[in-house]
Amino acid sequence: MINQLIANIKKTNAPVVVGLDPMMKFVPEYIQRDAFEQYGETLEGAAEAVWQFNKGIVDAVCDLVPAVKPQVAMYEQFGIPGMTVFKRTVDYCKEKGLVVIGDVKRGDIGSTSEAYAVGHLGRVSVGSRSYSAFDEDFVTVNPYLGSDGVKPFMKVCAREKKGIFVLVKTSNPSSGEFQDRLMDGKPLYELVGEKVAQWGAECMPEDGDYSYVGAVVGATYPEQGRIMRKVMPKSFILVPGYGAQGGKGADLVDFFNEDGLGAIINSSRGIIAAYQQEEYAHFGERGYADAARAAVLHMREDISTALANR
Amino acid sequence: MINQLIANIKKTNAPVVVGLDPMMKFVPEYIQRDAFEQYGETLEGAAEAVWQFNKGIVDAVCDLVPAVKPQVAMYEQFGIPGMTVFKRTVDYCKEKGLVVIGDVKRGDIGSTSEAYAVGHLGRVSVGSRSYSAFDEDFVTVNPYLGSDGVKPFMKVCAREKKGIFVLVKTSNPSSGEFQDRLMDGKPLYELVGEKVAQWGAECMPEDGDYSYVGAVVGATYPEQGRIMRKVMPKSFILVPGYGAQGGKGADLVDFFNEDGLGAIINSSRGIIAAYQQEEYAHFGERGYADAARAAVLHMREDISTALANR
Repeated sequence: MINQLIANIKKTNAPVVVGLDPMMKFVPEYIQRDAFEQYGETLEGAAEAVWQFNKGIVDAVCDLVPAVKPQVAMYEQFGIPGMTVFKRTVDYCKEKGLVVIGDVKRGDIGSTSEAYAVGHLGRVSVGSRSYSAFDEDFVTVNPYLGSDGVKPFMKVCAREKKGIFVLVKTSNPSSGEFQDRLMDGKPLYELVGEKVAQWGAECMPEDGDYSYVGAVVGATYPEQGRIMRKVMPKSFILVPGYGAQGGKGADLVDFFNEDGLGAIINSSRGIIAAYQQEEYAHFGERGYADAARAAVLHMREDISTALANR
Repeated sequence: MINQLIANIKKTNAPVVVGLDPMMKFVPEYIQRDAFEQYGETLEGAAEAVWQFNKGIVDAVCDLVPAVKPQVAMYEQFGIPGMTVFKRTVDYCKEKGLVVIGDVKRGDIGSTSEAYAVGHLGRVSVGSRSYSAFDEDFVTVNPYLGSDGVKPFMKVCAREKKGIFVLVKTSNPSSGEFQDRLMDGKPLYELVGEKVAQWGAECMPEDGDYSYVGAVVGATYPEQGRIMRKVMPKSFILVPGYGAQGGKGADLVDFFNEDGLGAIINSSRGIIAAYQQEEYAHFGERGYADAARAAVLHMREDISTALANR
């Protein structure tokens, strides 16, 4: 799937991921109203609104971007109906040729990490048969538990040719509380990055330059991105925090390798809720999907200009 | 819920949590066969087998223990049917008077952590109404993203009188890779523990001595348990790793405060798969629930003897 991701990036000329984080406040009133008329103000109604919203966004942007990143928390909060729509979203995006990065930030030990890996990336055995449960192409993984927590994912990635992005330096203001603390003169995130490089070297596709093991480094920390790019040369970096969280194209050039690859920039609310921003307000709520398309085009332009000027 | 947990511990005289981690290899053949006859070798069939297995365990031990800890990964791997049985297990355990600790190890930033907190501990808004999605009493939380990731859980805990256990020092062999690294002479887990103490002080019930914010420290690291007990005096410590992972009652006394409270010891496979161990093999697979009951009684005895002799 890392090779599919790269092929999609080259085809679209856009190292851009659309974050499908459908908070209800982003979903236009008319979509909520229609869903509630059909299912009532229930978890099913909320999940239906999320689904219709997502479908509109995906239809509007699927020819422009290589990948989407549904944030599972936004679905999980609506319980079983929400998880059902998470799965429907994954399937629909894959039908549209998009690479799907499940932003699940799972991570546990041994057999428990294996269960997450199997459930999200692989196939689970049931008697003599096996099934894919959620079947994303990539997932995000939390490294706090160490190699025991990550290796079961790597095993499934190698078998299924899928991938993970390990949290290294997150985009939030308090990410430094633990991640920036110095150990032997190096911040924790750099030690995690060194481990990612090592895990990455053990988990390469037969026919490609980038590993199945990538990393997450926030757009809000461009200086760290520059360093981590060098520490993890074979790892794709998933970069959240563009747009709404403050990152701009010009800040992000050092997340990329010389080949123009190696990074993929995520924007969530900056795209899916573009119609709520002044710049795209003229689309109106019924034009939310067109606003999203316009925001993707601006973002692609911003990043490619920055890469051309570096 | 921390007060309910304490009341349950006093009533049962057992600071014991049964980990409901139903790997299929623990589920007796006859239960799998019955479930597959009804639903086929499908995700629904696997989920039904897990549910029947859990129900047997819960019925057999619910008068002996204060709490259970379902590990969500073991349900999530079976997709929507698995998550449906996770929810059914949570509800059933609560009906039986057990405190339910969802071992979900979630953690993200800002509005995303809020969505997890709302979905697992609180109520999610849908139009003019609100719903509980999974409704555990406690969940486990990963601290790697810092305060941004934890505070949304604390907000929901304060509102709902529920609780969290933050991962501090996990029980797995490679937990030291990052958690033991020294920063200014102190290991990372101790810095996380100091944060837990601070978060805990900000999130106390009106009428109790222990905080809504607890910690996870593995039974396999008793020396660290002794230190962390002092660092986080107001936090309950959830202690995984008893039994199968090597921890014994005598090693665990320093996880408790002088009042005999402050820790709750988890055993998963040591109880739910007791019938597969030599010591309890005479129960046979049809006696798996009775074997679990016998294992709980032994564990309670082991811990209370150790506490009496300290």
